[in-house]
Amino acid sequence: MHYQYYLELAGTAFFAISGALAAARKASPDWFGVTFISFITATGGGSLRDILLGAYPLGWISDVNVILAVFAGILIASLFFRNLLKLPKLFFVFDSLGIAMFTTLGVEKALAYDVHPLVAAMLGMFSAVMGGVIRDVLSNEIPVIFRKEIYATACLSGAILYLILNHYGLERRLCISAAALFIFGLRYLAVKYHWSLPQFGRQKEQ
Amino acid sequence: MHYQYYLELAGTAFFAISGALAAARKASPDWFGVTFISFITATGGGSLRDILLGAYPLGWISDVNVILAVFAGILIASLFFRNLLKLPKLFFVFDSLGIAMFTTLGVEKALAYDVHPLVAAMLGMFSAVMGGVIRDVLSNEIPVIFRKEIYATACLSGAILYLILNHYGLERRLCISAAALFIFGLRYLAVKYHWSLPQFGRQKEQ
Amino acid sequence: MHYQYYLELAGTAFFAISGALAAARKASPDWFGVTFISFITATGGGSLRDILLGAYPLGWISDVNVILAVFAGILIASLFFRNLLKLPKLFFVFDSLGIAMFTTLGVEKALAYDVHPLVAAMLGMFSAVMGGVIRDVLSNEIPVIFRKEIYATACLSGAILYLILNHYGLERRLCISAAALFIFGLRYLAVKYHWSLPQFGRQKEQ
Repeated sequence: MHYQYYLELAGTAFFAISGALAAARKASPDWFGVTFISFITATGGGSLRDILLGAYPLGWISDVNVILAVFAGILIASLFFRNLLKLPKLFFVFDSLGIAMFTTLGVEKALAYDVHPLVAAMLGMFSAVMGGVIRDVLSNEIPVIFRKEIYATACLSGAILYLILNHYGLERRLCISAAALFIFGLRYLAVKYHWSLPQFGRQKEQ
Repeated sequence: MHYQYYLELAGTAFFAISGALAAARKASPDWFGVTFISFITATGGGSLRDILLGAYPLGWISDVNVILAVFAGILIASLFFRNLLKLPKLFFVFDSLGIAMFTTLGVEKALAYDVHPLVAAMLGMFSAVMGGVIRDVLSNEIPVIFRKEIYATACLSGAILYLILNHYGLERRLCISAAALFIFGLRYLAVKYHWSLPQFGRQKEQ
Repeated sequence: MHYQYYLELAGTAFFAISGALAAARKASPDWFGVTFISFITATGGGSLRDILLGAYPLGWISDVNVILAVFAGILIASLFFRNLLKLPKLFFVFDSLGIAMFTTLGVEKALAYDVHPLVAAMLGMFSAVMGGVIRDVLSNEIPVIFRKEIYATACLSGAILYLILNHYGLERRLCISAAALFIFGLRYLAVKYHWSLPQFGRQKEQ
């Protein structure tokens, strides 16, 4: 699938940009630190998905273009550093495109290994959010998915939508587009209207 | 082995309960955060063991019942949230049953891959404690095994007991029961009498 | 390769010593905590490299001598605890020998799996630094490679030197020695003359 391959490289570059910006906002890291964190943000989720599935070889191990896509993302982040920091909305759009793309591609890859749809949905979500989780753990922070909660929930919901459409025999490209749009839209609305999930255990305490 | 399969599902649910309660005690996480942390607590140790062994497919990837056991644990934790917080002893019993079960099942699984008994003992201990370690790392805390130290040592001792009994040809169900009881008892006594291990390097400093 | 095997065990023991000392400097850990952290520091980088490559079985899973090398390192760290803390330069030498050795052996192992040279260089660097990264994450600290930055950059540069020499057909043992010496020397000079890498994004802000 040509278009899927290029989408994946583009998603990787978007994630690398977002990783580099996140790293650069911290206490003055140098080029190595930013590159390292950016690389892990961009490849961590997919690598974890493949390791859990036993889907060897991993993408960036067998295809150096993935690494070059990361480097391209870091270069873009470096060249437009000040501009990107001033345009948080542009950054939000890139990051949301990245998670929408990674979720649906992750679900598809998991399904190719004949797993239960519920497992496929979880692995799709992992593909999209785990790179950021590892990045936050390395930076000694509470992972962002426990703070901006609708982030991962949007991925999971989109993954389930993909599976439902797929179950009813819709064309593959349609399933992907619908699910990706849904993730993007849900996240956008959640941020705009400050949606959040109910607290766990709270209902019992009143 | 039917009974072993159901024991493993029960152990997974116990771990999910303990993971959900641990997560819920933190700064007001929502349902997604609690589910995510609970899932990792319950499946992280076994997943790491299988990845280190190359034992594919992983349990929860190939058997959706494991995921359903986690969800059952979370549901129980939610329904009995206040009661469970008021009964730390009951919680302690569930958690101890969980680690006793996971340690012995982990040793058995490792032995099936023809590893050295020392490696099997370590992998048994990893199965029981690594889910909690990952949970603590994600919550930005020093892992509990470095604070309540007899916790992991009990697992390791039980794993070694299993290997000794097994070496002398005792029946498998007997080895499991003896090792699990030993882990449970050692942990109980350690908590009751405040046992702890000697400090490293201290003997040199006086 | 006999000599390579013993070099690897020696490197593992060096890393275990450095892991035990790092752990023991923290808030009074007991023997179990020090052993656990020391084990992860010594085996974590190589394990991650092998998991990413799908190179099963992992070293310490199939060869109990690796675990014994870790225990030897911990024993040495315990016996000479006060002396080692008073001789930070000796400690620096051991740690630098460890990373030089692990980087070159890591590059070689990756090349054996037919990966792109760029991937091999990254996996060589991972072998050397990731054990320490996992150790720091478990201790709830910002990984040292983001603070003493030339550390990992030295590994990466040495890995690239190995690949260049190897590309021009130099004898294997010569490639290893040159790369290891280069890593050692670069790190030594970087610490002595306080070399550091340029800050990311800084050039744009003036």
